Amino acid sequence: MNVMTIAVDTMGGDLGPSAAVEGVFRAAKRYPYLRLMMVGPEDILAEEMRKHEKNAGISILHAPEVIDPSETPTTAIREKKESSIVKGLRAVKNGDAQGFVSAGSTGALLTGATVIIGRRPGIERPALGTLLPTHTNPKDSRRGFVLLMDCGANMDCKPSYLTQFGELGAEYMKKTMGIENPRVGLINVGTEEEKGNAAAKEAYALMKEAGYNFVGNIEGREIPSGTVDVAICDGFTGNILLKFTEGFAKAMMGMIKEELMSATLSKIGALMATGAFKKLKTRFDYREVGGAPFLGLKSIVIKAHGSSDALAFMNAIRQCVEFNETEETAWNSKK
Amino acid sequence: MNVMTIAVDTMGGDLGPSAAVEGVFRAAKRYPYLRLMMVGPEDILAEEMRKHEKNAGISILHAPEVIDPSETPTTAIREKKESSIVKGLRAVKNGDAQGFVSAGSTGALLTGATVIIGRRPGIERPALGTLLPTHTNPKDSRRGFVLLMDCGANMDCKPSYLTQFGELGAEYMKKTMGIENPRVGLINVGTEEEKGNAAAKEAYALMKEAGYNFVGNIEGREIPSGTVDVAICDGFTGNILLKFTEGFAKAMMGMIKEELMSATLSKIGALMATGAFKKLKTRFDYREVGGAPFLGLKSIVIKAHGSSDALAFMNAIRQCVEFNETEETAWNSKK
Repeated sequence: MNVMTIAVDTMGGDLGPSAAVEGVFRAAKRYPYLRLMMVGPEDILAEEMRKHEKNAGISILHAPEVIDPSETPTTAIREKKESSIVKGLRAVKNGDAQGFVSAGSTGALLTGATVIIGRRPGIERPALGTLLPTHTNPKDSRRGFVLLMDCGANMDCKPSYLTQFGELGAEYMKKTMGIENPRVGLINVGTEEEKGNAAAKEAYALMKEAGYNFVGNIEGREIPSGTVDVAICDGFTGNILLKFTEGFAKAMMGMIKEELMSATLSKIGALMATGAFKKLKTRFDYREVGGAPFLGLKSIVIKAHGSSDALAFMNAIRQCVEFNETEETAWNSKK
Repeated sequence: MNVMTIAVDTMGGDLGPSAAVEGVFRAAKRYPYLRLMMVGPEDILAEEMRKHEKNAGISILHAPEVIDPSETPTTAIREKKESSIVKGLRAVKNGDAQGFVSAGSTGALLTGATVIIGRRPGIERPALGTLLPTHTNPKDSRRGFVLLMDCGANMDCKPSYLTQFGELGAEYMKKTMGIENPRVGLINVGTEEEKGNAAAKEAYALMKEAGYNFVGNIEGREIPSGTVDVAICDGFTGNILLKFTEGFAKAMMGMIKEELMSATLSKIGALMATGAFKKLKTRFDYREVGGAPFLGLKSIVIKAHGSSDALAFMNAIRQCVEFNETEETAWNSKK
């Protein structure tokens, strides 16, 4: 492709359209060769655009309706044809855009993307990935992220789905993180081939033959240890793990705070360590990573966090760009 | 029962029989009315006993064989009739003991306990629970633990198994933690009844009618937040979650350390906060909690951590005692 266009749903986020629009303008500045299509109500977007410097690469796709997260995904996609999610996905389907970013209803986005954009040949089910920070040996130069997938698109998974998720995840980590031969692991209860539930046992056999760099089963403790670049599981387990990460990190920080505050000496220590704690928080900050890639479709779709700000939107757009980049366009976009 | 006897496998732990024997002697001191049966090679145990003050409540059950974790559980249980696990479980089966503690092979212990002691009437599958520390509002007086189960005994679970796990978990938390009406939650991808994989959806309907305090679905982030006393899932998900906890806590502590060490000011802060970090570690210390209860059998079995020391063994014995206590014996043991 010569010109890459990314469509951005400006309506789904908790912070309203201004955060999405600001993210679009920041992305346009960073990637001058990129075209950006803002999807949402024309009047609101025209108003928002006036706050920014004119940019010829940014256009508006009028979408007067919004899908609320409380709506049933299938019904919403079928009935709200003028919603920002449906119109954005249609733009991708028609070839007017090569990627879509939305902070709106996860269910509607996944259902809509599967129905409207459609699956890539050979992929039975698209899956949602999430980048989790890992902690490797500081002397280790590997990038500190693991792609956990599926994070909730598919509850009950056939072994063949899991196998395909590995292929999709490896491709994503190669394209967006520059990892040459991404290591793919199957999340399981033990490292031996015969371990696990019925789906995992069968998936192991298939993944061995899949042609990517399958390193075998990994146990839960290895997910954050940097042992693999892609960690595969069904969407039920993945979603629980992902949300557990959030709750557990919060609980741990709460416990640390409590312990630090219980003695005067460590209270002073805590104050002195405040900067370090703040830095740690950015390592878990979804805004820095962007959104969750929805992979296995004919084009890339990024589910941005509900409370995405301009930085998060910009990084979600960056994910689409990097995923679509060829060597030639990569050179252009980095000029 | 008038006299309670707990059998203790002295051979399975990484620290050798001396840790288990010391734990037994400490438990005997704490519960003077308790009888303790040490299971292992007679000569080794007689030698170990000589290091401690004589105690009439402690006996030896000779078991010359040991099951190695690398052995196939079913084969090991069938063939090693003189192993400490098989002999200890037989003592429980025969009524010579009312509980069993082992730090040996998890697989052999679970298989052996199910085959030898047998399931409790109405329970299709026993399950392994683990106590995880929770972080509640400091003003909240509730105990800071959640029982996660199943943690790995059953890979593929029928909805009826999950329902029964709720009953077993609630009973355990009531008996050992003194929680009057334990709140039982089903771990799922959303709080709505229709969420989840096929097993979870069906289990929800059954758990609503189960007669215990079922509070509905909980998401991953609520597991460590103290929302429930018992968190139910299949053994595949539970085992992955449990091991993830370990890896994630380690990764987080590593990241905190790295951030603290990156600036002089916070380096001083880190030194001052060292005591607090040490205290935090004890909140995640399995030795304080004891072992993982294997519930749903005719008697209680505690899987102690592989690297259990004397304190951990003592606490695993305490779990058996508390589980078996009636109001009368509780009074006796606390005299």
